[in-house]
Amino acid sequence: MTVFLVGAGPGDPGLLTVRGTQVLSEAEVVIHDRLVAPAILGLAPEDALLVDVGKVAGGSSTQATINDLLVSYGRQGGLVVRLKGGDPFVFGRGGEEVDVLEAAGIAWEVVPGVSSAFAAPGAVGIPVTHRNEASSVTVVTGHEDPTKATSDVDWAALAGIKGTLVILMGMAQRRAIADALMAGGMDGATPVAVVRWGTTPDEEQVRTTLDGLADVTLGAPAVIVVGQVAARGRGDDG
Amino acid sequence: MTVFLVGAGPGDPGLLTVRGTQVLSEAEVVIHDRLVAPAILGLAPEDALLVDVGKVAGGSSTQATINDLLVSYGRQGGLVVRLKGGDPFVFGRGGEEVDVLEAAGIAWEVVPGVSSAFAAPGAVGIPVTHRNEASSVTVVTGHEDPTKATSDVDWAALAGIKGTLVILMGMAQRRAIADALMAGGMDGATPVAVVRWGTTPDEEQVRTTLDGLADVTLGAPAVIVVGQVAARGRGDDG
Repeated sequence: MTVFLVGAGPGDPGLLTVRGTQVLSEAEVVIHDRLVAPAILGLAPEDALLVDVGKVAGGSSTQATINDLLVSYGRQGGLVVRLKGGDPFVFGRGGEEVDVLEAAGIAWEVVPGVSSAFAAPGAVGIPVTHRNEASSVTVVTGHEDPTKATSDVDWAALAGIKGTLVILMGMAQRRAIADALMAGGMDGATPVAVVRWGTTPDEEQVRTTLDGLADVTLGAPAVIVVGQVAARGRGDDG
Repeated sequence: MTVFLVGAGPGDPGLLTVRGTQVLSEAEVVIHDRLVAPAILGLAPEDALLVDVGKVAGGSSTQATINDLLVSYGRQGGLVVRLKGGDPFVFGRGGEEVDVLEAAGIAWEVVPGVSSAFAAPGAVGIPVTHRNEASSVTVVTGHEDPTKATSDVDWAALAGIKGTLVILMGMAQRRAIADALMAGGMDGATPVAVVRWGTTPDEEQVRTTLDGLADVTLGAPAVIVVGQVAARGRGDDG
């Protein structure tokens, strides 16, 4: 049998794909993240086994636990769905999970999902690209401390590309990220939008500028959009 | 009534969203791009008016024609779907179309789609991000000549960010793009994957390196992936 890595999309159950819905409706085991909406989990058959790995997610040792679960359920032969928020291959650690399945000789298939990196801004009317305003869009995680010497992300380089920047999981480090981008030459007056629970009924947003990002009090999980396009769309509702 | 900007996804009809399917099934007018699959257009009611604007797409004057159609059908009051490949807000000029609808006082709603920028690489097993290999992904259009003085894209800056680069509509300019990235300091040995018709039965791919990109003969439309992750996944099938 096959382990399906399915993207659950940005939050709104209507934004799951047709294929994702179909695979989920046939699942025997669903190994899911904490943030997947109950309405999406409800698409699995009543007798499907739901395994919430959200509680343990975060560090590398807990990813090892998830990997072990994937291999052990994958070997049992039922239809296994690994259900992840957004898209499995966009900061979802889906690449690592595929490596583990390949090494174990277990067949896998990816069913992409709508990424919250694009859909959360879109839900408040922000197109991540726009003619004459942004000819590129970069998606990056902000969960690491930018002042850490070993940071994988070169914020100064990102400050130089002029396109839209979408930062996932960046709220805890928002002050350090804003400082790093301004140190890299980005104007403090650059428009910024912060969108929480985008596409869902709990959606909230704040509009500000890069030098005001540190003062935004919206809680995680939120998507931070930096760039001229962040001045577009429908304004504050939070 | 409302004009719905609906993302048709990367090609596979199964990758349309549930919400997109629903809106399309109620459409009275569908204004669609050339590349949208017949199976997706077939989801519209039999008596829906299908308007193919793909023939005229490309330049700014033809976008003006599309804008006029959106306003004129939008004012007639039926349910109008503007059906676009991928996601409407990722290089789909959806932002401009929204500007036009807003100016005309016509209500609009965006239904995001799975972007081919992420799904085409994913279909050949390439995760656009991967722990320790790519902590960012940048999506950019390559339809402009990089040697043009007025180019909006700073390829040298893009060469410096070290994450994955996904280039849409770049095949015509592939030699100039590769040269510009190498001139910006990117290693000619950087892995490259070119994926054509990703997620569809016509899918083809070529694996190469940045200094070999100019020699790839795969036709448009194709997605070019540049970065360490492009060495991952399932190999050549084209």
